[in-house]
Amino acid sequence: LACDMQFTVFVPPETRRAPLLWWLSGLTCTPENFTVKAGAYRQAAARGLAVVAPDTSPRGPQVPDSERYDLGQGAGFYVDATVEPWSRHYRMYSYISDELNELVCREFPVDAGAQGISGHSMGGHGALVLGLRNPRRYRSLSAFAPIVAPSRVPWGQQAFGAYLGEDRDAWARYDATELMQAAGDRSAAAPILVDQGEADEFLTEQLRPGLFAAACDRVGQPLELRYQPGYDHSYFFVSTFIAEHIDHHARLLRS
Amino acid sequence: LACDMQFTVFVPPETRRAPLLWWLSGLTCTPENFTVKAGAYRQAAARGLAVVAPDTSPRGPQVPDSERYDLGQGAGFYVDATVEPWSRHYRMYSYISDELNELVCREFPVDAGAQGISGHSMGGHGALVLGLRNPRRYRSLSAFAPIVAPSRVPWGQQAFGAYLGEDRDAWARYDATELMQAAGDRSAAAPILVDQGEADEFLTEQLRPGLFAAACDRVGQPLELRYQPGYDHSYFFVSTFIAEHIDHHARLLRS
Repeated sequence: LACDMQFTVFVPPETRRAPLLWWLSGLTCTPENFTVKAGAYRQAAARGLAVVAPDTSPRGPQVPDSERYDLGQGAGFYVDATVEPWSRHYRMYSYISDELNELVCREFPVDAGAQGISGHSMGGHGALVLGLRNPRRYRSLSAFAPIVAPSRVPWGQQAFGAYLGEDRDAWARYDATELMQAAGDRSAAAPILVDQGEADEFLTEQLRPGLFAAACDRVGQPLELRYQPGYDHSYFFVSTFIAEHIDHHARLLRS
Repeated sequence: LACDMQFTVFVPPETRRAPLLWWLSGLTCTPENFTVKAGAYRQAAARGLAVVAPDTSPRGPQVPDSERYDLGQGAGFYVDATVEPWSRHYRMYSYISDELNELVCREFPVDAGAQGISGHSMGGHGALVLGLRNPRRYRSLSAFAPIVAPSRVPWGQQAFGAYLGEDRDAWARYDATELMQAAGDRSAAAPILVDQGEADEFLTEQLRPGLFAAACDRVGQPLELRYQPGYDHSYFFVSTFIAEHIDHHARLLRS
């Protein structure tokens, strides 16, 4: 990404090669938000999972930014940008799937053959896209309140327009609903777990999980989409259900 | 306290009068630290406990402060100050035990007859002192890395010297080890749970849990003092064991 990056890694005690869960965070987040607020590590320790939390964009004074919270630093959208001024630094897709993956698997006692991916909001979008495009690398997949159809909602349209321009084929490669719709029969694929708060203020305009559910339905993809009454878009929602997501990943990664 | 104060309250779903756990935070904390970082509410919901997290001192531009992190705002030490310039605002003991207690019990669906208290570091000191001095109000008691003998360690000596002056009798009334030593037979009292990280950087100079354990031993107070290998003084320590403390309080408050 042509800049210094930060991330956190949790390694469970007394393990040689732990299955590895990737957590992709949402708009405005740094690695701190998940690390400090999700309360995930107690269950990760209990299930013997390592967890890595990357940043959400390139960082630094030399990195292009915008005054919007949903574009530029803190808002990388897990794409490889192709449009100026973004294309030099904003390559979060490759950073997560290749560079940081290799580094973490080399430097920490994790099992590169047992990786899963999850995330929240923009990070749920990233997790679904990375998981669907790299099924051998990410063997388990889940998301909290993901942006499932970025090509059809304001957050995604604005970000993709900036980072990818008008190349709609490129948009489709970063759109979980489009990827799912284009897949063949997925009835043998591992189930995907998605939690969505019913009181989430972004539910109907930005998230629209029903679009993804319909696409899954069409190709036979097993999907457990759980609407959680009363929960909003905050980390209190994540911290309430993260242990169940860790169980989901542990089950699939240890089978 | 002659200023505006903030606190957080968690109320479990579907309860009429929940047992109430007080959480007192440590040096530099606001109500946010516990609320956001402890990951306590999932287990509190499961056990049907309400949880209130007060601030650690009076606040505001009109409130005396110091440049030290361990004196003044963020460092009230849960005493009623008697020395200028502190005595007008710094009355955290009365604020927690009386004013805020009445307000929370009046405004929220909690059971005023089933209250427990816990806390971390300076807040562990506060929890032990408030619990020991008000046994009918606080029926369950626990602490994380508490300052158990403030009269004998630098943090406590400096704070008590500032807030209470040279009145050593007053110091003793805010010192858990002194209070325990002065108690009669406590072999029928409810057990106290204390967790202490072995890698805590403040263990030997500021915390010294062995002093409290010896005092408990002398009066027959049941104490479960658990040294946790590898844990430091941070909220990762709290978040790892908070569910077990909630279980401890739920057991005692529901019996």
